[in-house]
Amino acid sequence: MRKKPEILDTRIVARSRLFRVEAVNLRFSNGVEVEFERLRGSGSVGAVIIVPLLTPETVLLIREYGVGLERYELGLPKGRVEPGEDMLEAANRELMEEVGYGARKLTKLRALSLAPGYLGHRTQVILAEDLYPQRMEGDEPEPIEVVEFPMNDFEDLVMDGEELTEGRSIAAIYMARSHLQRRSNGHG
Amino acid sequence: MRKKPEILDTRIVARSRLFRVEAVNLRFSNGVEVEFERLRGSGSVGAVIIVPLLTPETVLLIREYGVGLERYELGLPKGRVEPGEDMLEAANRELMEEVGYGARKLTKLRALSLAPGYLGHRTQVILAEDLYPQRMEGDEPEPIEVVEFPMNDFEDLVMDGEELTEGRSIAAIYMARSHLQRRSNGHG
Repeated sequence: MRKKPEILDTRIVARSRLFRVEAVNLRFSNGVEVEFERLRGSGSVGAVIIVPLLTPETVLLIREYGVGLERYELGLPKGRVEPGEDMLEAANRELMEEVGYGARKLTKLRALSLAPGYLGHRTQVILAEDLYPQRMEGDEPEPIEVVEFPMNDFEDLVMDGEELTEGRSIAAIYMARSHLQRRSNGHG
Repeated sequence: MRKKPEILDTRIVARSRLFRVEAVNLRFSNGVEVEFERLRGSGSVGAVIIVPLLTPETVLLIREYGVGLERYELGLPKGRVEPGEDMLEAANRELMEEVGYGARKLTKLRALSLAPGYLGHRTQVILAEDLYPQRMEGDEPEPIEVVEFPMNDFEDLVMDGEELTEGRSIAAIYMARSHLQRRSNGHG
């Protein structure tokens, strides 16, 4: 494995309520020096994205407004891990807040990154099964619409649709399907 | 479909060489008003991520340092669309710069978003086939390592590995596989 570049210097070059932009000076192992910029979030302990299975054949998606794209978007529930919570507790809380269900069975799959070139985010994928109705109040500005979707048809939504576009949501659903296939084949 | 929130006001609250942070005041259709922050990039026309198939069974991945995660990461080649380029031209250029191949056959799949809640990014997924060796100089600080990987085994890399974690790369490879399966089944 290649030797990592050496970080010569980092400094905050811009800051807002939620974001900090950091300039980073690097020296690669071949001697080349460059300056990159990267984003830091608001110091959260981590994040989770949840694949909630209402039945083994039905995934629950949410339709939520994203001001980045200025449109409603279908995707998986997700959110930050709050101080004092572990990943599974955070996943169950977000599920109750955004989808109106709790889960008796929560399984950590693996973590997804967002844009390794300029973001440090890592989002843990959690499979949620054996659901029961349980609503918790979140901080959403309007009620979130929940959509039941057949696992067998989600590739149609990915390949033809216009509403499910987020890389992490798509990757997480495919990963959940791979996990379920392997489990039913006795590979885990 | 729900009525979109009304954007009451936007203003730049932080700015660096590459990023602008915008505060956005919104009024949801239920009357609730909130302030969000979102990131704007450097005004690029768009971005592409390429799934390069050396053979129908072999995908080419790159191993590149990402300063966001401070590690080397396996993923697909990607980059910005430059002014005057269309998506397919940009994909072929990035392929030549990062992987050392050109493609005689380029197919647009669909666009992936990154984080609809606070980023406007959309990345077009391009399947590249019928490759031929062709190197173009890019602006990479060190040579990029290219890894040939069997399409049949990439789920192992996703489910067990530690190196391929980016949501967009994982989603794009799964999408390419879905596309190839459908094509060979005569569904497009």
